[in-house]
Amino acid sequence: MTTSQSALPPQLPGILVEEAVRAALTEDLGRAGDITTNATIPVDATANAVISSRENGTLAGIDLAETAFQLMDETLVFERHASDGHRLSAGGIVAEISGTARAILGAERVALNYLMRMSGIASYTARFQEQIAHTKARICCTRKTVPGHRAFDKYAVKCGGGSNHRFGLDDAVLIKDNHIAVCGGVAIAIERAREFAGHLVMIEVEVDTLEQFVEALEANPDVVLLDNMTTDQLAEAVSTNQQHNGGRIRLEASGNVNIDTVKAIAETGVDFISTSKITMAAPTLDLGLDISIS
Amino acid sequence: MTTSQSALPPQLPGILVEEAVRAALTEDLGRAGDITTNATIPVDATANAVISSRENGTLAGIDLAETAFQLMDETLVFERHASDGHRLSAGGIVAEISGTARAILGAERVALNYLMRMSGIASYTARFQEQIAHTKARICCTRKTVPGHRAFDKYAVKCGGGSNHRFGLDDAVLIKDNHIAVCGGVAIAIERAREFAGHLVMIEVEVDTLEQFVEALEANPDVVLLDNMTTDQLAEAVSTNQQHNGGRIRLEASGNVNIDTVKAIAETGVDFISTSKITMAAPTLDLGLDISIS
Amino acid sequence: MTTSQSALPPQLPGILVEEAVRAALTEDLGRAGDITTNATIPVDATANAVISSRENGTLAGIDLAETAFQLMDETLVFERHASDGHRLSAGGIVAEISGTARAILGAERVALNYLMRMSGIASYTARFQEQIAHTKARICCTRKTVPGHRAFDKYAVKCGGGSNHRFGLDDAVLIKDNHIAVCGGVAIAIERAREFAGHLVMIEVEVDTLEQFVEALEANPDVVLLDNMTTDQLAEAVSTNQQHNGGRIRLEASGNVNIDTVKAIAETGVDFISTSKITMAAPTLDLGLDISIS
Amino acid sequence: MTTSQSALPPQLPGILVEEAVRAALTEDLGRAGDITTNATIPVDATANAVISSRENGTLAGIDLAETAFQLMDETLVFERHASDGHRLSAGGIVAEISGTARAILGAERVALNYLMRMSGIASYTARFQEQIAHTKARICCTRKTVPGHRAFDKYAVKCGGGSNHRFGLDDAVLIKDNHIAVCGGVAIAIERAREFAGHLVMIEVEVDTLEQFVEALEANPDVVLLDNMTTDQLAEAVSTNQQHNGGRIRLEASGNVNIDTVKAIAETGVDFISTSKITMAAPTLDLGLDISIS
Amino acid sequence: MTTSQSALPPQLPGILVEEAVRAALTEDLGRAGDITTNATIPVDATANAVISSRENGTLAGIDLAETAFQLMDETLVFERHASDGHRLSAGGIVAEISGTARAILGAERVALNYLMRMSGIASYTARFQEQIAHTKARICCTRKTVPGHRAFDKYAVKCGGGSNHRFGLDDAVLIKDNHIAVCGGVAIAIERAREFAGHLVMIEVEVDTLEQFVEALEANPDVVLLDNMTTDQLAEAVSTNQQHNGGRIRLEASGNVNIDTVKAIAETGVDFISTSKITMAAPTLDLGLDISIS
Amino acid sequence: MTTSQSALPPQLPGILVEEAVRAALTEDLGRAGDITTNATIPVDATANAVISSRENGTLAGIDLAETAFQLMDETLVFERHASDGHRLSAGGIVAEISGTARAILGAERVALNYLMRMSGIASYTARFQEQIAHTKARICCTRKTVPGHRAFDKYAVKCGGGSNHRFGLDDAVLIKDNHIAVCGGVAIAIERAREFAGHLVMIEVEVDTLEQFVEALEANPDVVLLDNMTTDQLAEAVSTNQQHNGGRIRLEASGNVNIDTVKAIAETGVDFISTSKITMAAPTLDLGLDISIS
Repeated sequence: MTTSQSALPPQLPGILVEEAVRAALTEDLGRAGDITTNATIPVDATANAVISSRENGTLAGIDLAETAFQLMDETLVFERHASDGHRLSAGGIVAEISGTARAILGAERVALNYLMRMSGIASYTARFQEQIAHTKARICCTRKTVPGHRAFDKYAVKCGGGSNHRFGLDDAVLIKDNHIAVCGGVAIAIERAREFAGHLVMIEVEVDTLEQFVEALEANPDVVLLDNMTTDQLAEAVSTNQQHNGGRIRLEASGNVNIDTVKAIAETGVDFISTSKITMAAPTLDLGLDISIS
Repeated sequence: MTTSQSALPPQLPGILVEEAVRAALTEDLGRAGDITTNATIPVDATANAVISSRENGTLAGIDLAETAFQLMDETLVFERHASDGHRLSAGGIVAEISGTARAILGAERVALNYLMRMSGIASYTARFQEQIAHTKARICCTRKTVPGHRAFDKYAVKCGGGSNHRFGLDDAVLIKDNHIAVCGGVAIAIERAREFAGHLVMIEVEVDTLEQFVEALEANPDVVLLDNMTTDQLAEAVSTNQQHNGGRIRLEASGNVNIDTVKAIAETGVDFISTSKITMAAPTLDLGLDISIS
Repeated sequence: MTTSQSALPPQLPGILVEEAVRAALTEDLGRAGDITTNATIPVDATANAVISSRENGTLAGIDLAETAFQLMDETLVFERHASDGHRLSAGGIVAEISGTARAILGAERVALNYLMRMSGIASYTARFQEQIAHTKARICCTRKTVPGHRAFDKYAVKCGGGSNHRFGLDDAVLIKDNHIAVCGGVAIAIERAREFAGHLVMIEVEVDTLEQFVEALEANPDVVLLDNMTTDQLAEAVSTNQQHNGGRIRLEASGNVNIDTVKAIAETGVDFISTSKITMAAPTLDLGLDISIS
Repeated sequence: MTTSQSALPPQLPGILVEEAVRAALTEDLGRAGDITTNATIPVDATANAVISSRENGTLAGIDLAETAFQLMDETLVFERHASDGHRLSAGGIVAEISGTARAILGAERVALNYLMRMSGIASYTARFQEQIAHTKARICCTRKTVPGHRAFDKYAVKCGGGSNHRFGLDDAVLIKDNHIAVCGGVAIAIERAREFAGHLVMIEVEVDTLEQFVEALEANPDVVLLDNMTTDQLAEAVSTNQQHNGGRIRLEASGNVNIDTVKAIAETGVDFISTSKITMAAPTLDLGLDISIS
Repeated sequence: MTTSQSALPPQLPGILVEEAVRAALTEDLGRAGDITTNATIPVDATANAVISSRENGTLAGIDLAETAFQLMDETLVFERHASDGHRLSAGGIVAEISGTARAILGAERVALNYLMRMSGIASYTARFQEQIAHTKARICCTRKTVPGHRAFDKYAVKCGGGSNHRFGLDDAVLIKDNHIAVCGGVAIAIERAREFAGHLVMIEVEVDTLEQFVEALEANPDVVLLDNMTTDQLAEAVSTNQQHNGGRIRLEASGNVNIDTVKAIAETGVDFISTSKITMAAPTLDLGLDISIS
Repeated sequence: MTTSQSALPPQLPGILVEEAVRAALTEDLGRAGDITTNATIPVDATANAVISSRENGTLAGIDLAETAFQLMDETLVFERHASDGHRLSAGGIVAEISGTARAILGAERVALNYLMRMSGIASYTARFQEQIAHTKARICCTRKTVPGHRAFDKYAVKCGGGSNHRFGLDDAVLIKDNHIAVCGGVAIAIERAREFAGHLVMIEVEVDTLEQFVEALEANPDVVLLDNMTTDQLAEAVSTNQQHNGGRIRLEASGNVNIDTVKAIAETGVDFISTSKITMAAPTLDLGLDISIS
């Protein structure tokens, strides 16, 4: 058996999902649970609910939504109408849920809060990615994420067609000016990092000027981050890189990246464009749950 | 001793702060810690750092920032230059930190992620609040918050001069159309809620029309939520409420609330205006940390 | 569909129940599990067990008991013969359990410890409530609960027909003498609380004298707590309250409340009577588990 | 250096104490903290507080109380006037606390809830122990404790002069009728337990009749639990035990133990008397905190 | 029904197993899960896998292995071919697993890490036990275990036919030279321990010389630990013990225990031989998982 | 300031250390703490203790040891005589501790368990590394570690001069035969991984034959794992690699690696040699604590 040609979708570890959703439900249910519903809806009332999108966008977070309902009541039936990464139209149905009314109402807000934020990130990432689809560049996220949500934010970026930067301080080396200054030069900083970090860890160096860039190339990092450069500077860096190593060292641009500037940046020929915008400034996608209690 | 006339600032429970920041640091440090810094900066190197704002705004999250540094190294000195709720100008210093360089670099991102998100919420809330300062209305948040961050999101709303709606499903009753439908009427729903929830729990009823509003008033809730009404309808509801109970029952407006519409809504005379915008669509406030390693 | 006339029963969030019972089982099973049973009862032995009450009382905690058995072995069959809030006679069967003997024996003590304490609270609350059934008063609990068990203690109070006071320091305001003294008066204290706490938070003021009571009424709290007053004083407060605001401000009595005094206190016309007796001095209800291993 | 003649006091592991108190404070502070105090008491207000007993009793739980205050604010000064196990008179001061007013008020209820419950257990245990001080018997607890509080309940029993039964299902063997029935006899049950449990685990057998007792003695357990026997039967068991093994096998009596019956039971010559009364039916000791805010 | 003659196997509490395996999976899956598999194996691919031993040994840890697969995907089918404590031959099949390929690959390493370490301990224990099978001695473990794994290490020792020493500092008394020195003698130390620890706690005393041993016997401990003695000294201690108390006080030997010396030590007649070798120096058992993806 | 020429030592995140040691102490102290010590050593007794090595080796775990003592009593003084990574001679002092005797005794076993295991790994790694010091090869670990201890095991490997392989399934791609088979070829598997994993994730491919190796080189992975090859095959692979890409693609050898074979493997010219031996078969280093109580 072989996989189809299209790329496989990302998949969140179920254990992470369950732990996070359990905490989120606890946060919302508090010490006494959904007192409004408990006061007014009988234990045995059942309901049907539909989650749908109220605007165009890209879905992310369906596993978390389903888990919210299942943790409230494992007998709830959750039928998916869309998968993470799929484009939604306004009015498009995401899922249908049926079962005890109390459980559906109790999970509603948590499920929607995840879907709205994560789909918002996916949708905004997709908008960036659309701007640069004619280039080889990929949009990618940073470590600027809401504390505790990094795995979900980064997963949502992938659902939107973006790519992930490092997940934390421990899984890749990113050498900045302070590290270089203390070491006394970019070459020695990279050497120390190679010695320290093991052969399965990428080493990236951040530079602000073309002079620094050339110096960095000599030290043979895996990736160079070109920060706050003009598109002219970026284009020159791409050219220099091609001459120096045939483009093997990958180039990442950052700084002043937004939905209006990203196209020009991508057209300079850089490989990656990183921005906190897609995780920290993404508008939520408006999703709603309509319920009919029987 | 008596308090001054100005309102006291909110205060997050230190235990919640520590637990959250500990998890956030663990998320960022991963299994191996800051490998870039460990590879390049000696254990005994020291540094001075300054956190400053790069734009105008309102500060929120200073406790979380300080805790991030202290959990990395309890001997770090963290000197506050501003308190939560204070207005920041571009370039304004928030705090200075001095001590071991590794600890400062290790906490940097977590501290800034909290400050940027929470100050973003406070700043956006303040902008809404400024629009309605000439009215008696207060802007308030909803339960649309990032899972796991509700306490911090709601605290930031208060730092921005806003007010808090309920924190979860358990600390106030909010009767919506489904609850009313199952009970067979708003009066019986409120009666059930009063019976169920105890005398220290507020009861709010959501209505969509003026007919429902009048019916709800008869059932004597503590608060009525006027959802998706025009400003004309809101003004009529305010007038009706004044005649009915002298304005004792408080009125909250929601729906189509944004920075452009909030002024007109407030001028109808409602007491509270709730919107998810201030927690889910607030731009982050741009803050940075500059460090010099000695 | 509409609910029946009788009030709906309370319902504990299943997530809270599972987390608590898991911890309780871990406490009892320790590091090596039930070594007596493991040494003497084969893995494949099965058993039938019956939980019954050995005295008259009111049931509370059946969800926790069932969860204890299910967490030991999800294939155990737990058949309920009574629901929380139901009156039990001596000898009355609460539940039957069948399945692996080891799992039943391993969960027995935890299940019974929950049932005995929570049913004890429900039963004692019911006894108080019976004393005052001819009045409009309701008995209610306080924050004097065993640490970590507040949600379960307060739920048990509701199973016994009582009502709940606030669940913590955060879900309602209770202004006491120190708060008033620092603020410089009850009116300013209430004003500060209204400003601080948001429109979905009730404000209660504690007073010790009728003079304080009158002063408090002027400041328009939602509830007044009349502490340690004689029944004559309470009756006068009820009368004053009726004249002042038509009884809209609710009155709560506390102090010297016990099974002998509660009737007279209720007959003064107060709305609520709060006492730590029902959570901290309730005799456990004697329940037992009889098992036959096959 | 040698210890004094009097027995050393028990000591709770500080790690357990901190974990439990942290959870208890989180339970009480909820998501928003002490909103009453935050609304009315300035951040920089300081206070002095005194914890005192309002009745005679035996103190237990001082570590938990101190930890509650220190977790709220590590700069609070907590001065102990009494140690766990000490007898308190009505009005006797337990501790004085000084520091920030908000922190003292925030920790008050948790500290008192621990002290009142644990001192209640210690006091009630001491009352049982006083009844039997002229005998060699010791009162001891069971596994009937509030879930999650077993370590603290059992520590309180020791503070009151009682002794501890096993802490869980894993640290001692207690063979009951079902275990014996499945094994086909008490001798084989004990043999299996000795084989299974290792040489540092005590083996106790529960018997209901003198016939079972004699049979059990032959199998050489470490302890025999004489359940629900008359004092005549108990006395005969003591005599038989003395003849059989010189009293080396220890005897524990249980069933129908209360403050009125314990003396006669002890005078039969048994070594230990176990009862759930001291953990599950102990009245709380009335302690209070008086605070003056400066 | 009666149990068969052979000893029952030990059983780990399922709650402990689930908690540990959940943490182990989280450790291995990290923040992004199995990125290799997610990139290359479709979500709906299924597989069959076989876990087999690549050398002779004794199995331990099958519950943890099964739990690893089930926590990844509860629909995986895990069929056991061997139970804990069973002897495995090289090539012997332990279990077969079928279901989604991603879940099997994600759980593989965690399942094998548990099986390899625990079966290593069981196998090494069995080798020690074989050396002494002709004596009455039992090999037993110590508190020298990998932090966090004590319950599993000790369970594995039992699977290998060994016996358990105490699980922690709290479940048995072990008096060493420092305790004796501070008390001023072994007799007073034992007396204090009996007073302190309750009647269901064994008391063991460690001695280094035959003089200390005789002194210890007089104080009537439950067990004496003979540390670092020659086999001649051990034999003399056994003889002395028989004369003194008929062998009722059990004797444990420790020090210089290894696979070569254990036979001679056992032949001295001691009851137990404790060594950290079986938990800290056991070679892992080589087990592997072969998978075929369909 | 610049760093010295020698490589910087690794550093464990303090938050991970504290969390792990807290759990380890809880495991050892159980529900009642160190009952032997509490029964025999007065609360105010003080002591001095020395941790020393009883054999030659390399230290690892000093942070965990210090944390164990500090979590028992923050006033203990812990003076380090050696740092992680330092060579220890038999008798060499690691640390001196002074303060309350109870706290020192309570932390002893946990501190030593960490030191003995981690120093054992460091020492064994150093022995491997010594064998290959004349080559450019580095010894490195695998994911075969004790569940829950991976971060500490891998840190110890670095203390011994070894290097780290990936920490989990998420921080590097390792493509094996199954992944290749499902994808239909190594090239497409690598392409999918590059697409999926982001630009800061290394991609390694495992091959068993030289034919596979050549095919893999064409697909341009970052690292190739040469599994179970003869030294002749390895040497040929090194040569081929040099010709193909100038040695830029790094080569890792695995299979049949032990202290006797590692030299010959290293001399083939491979860059890294990975083995589970250093984490799963390292003998513990014998360290002891001598205490004198005053």
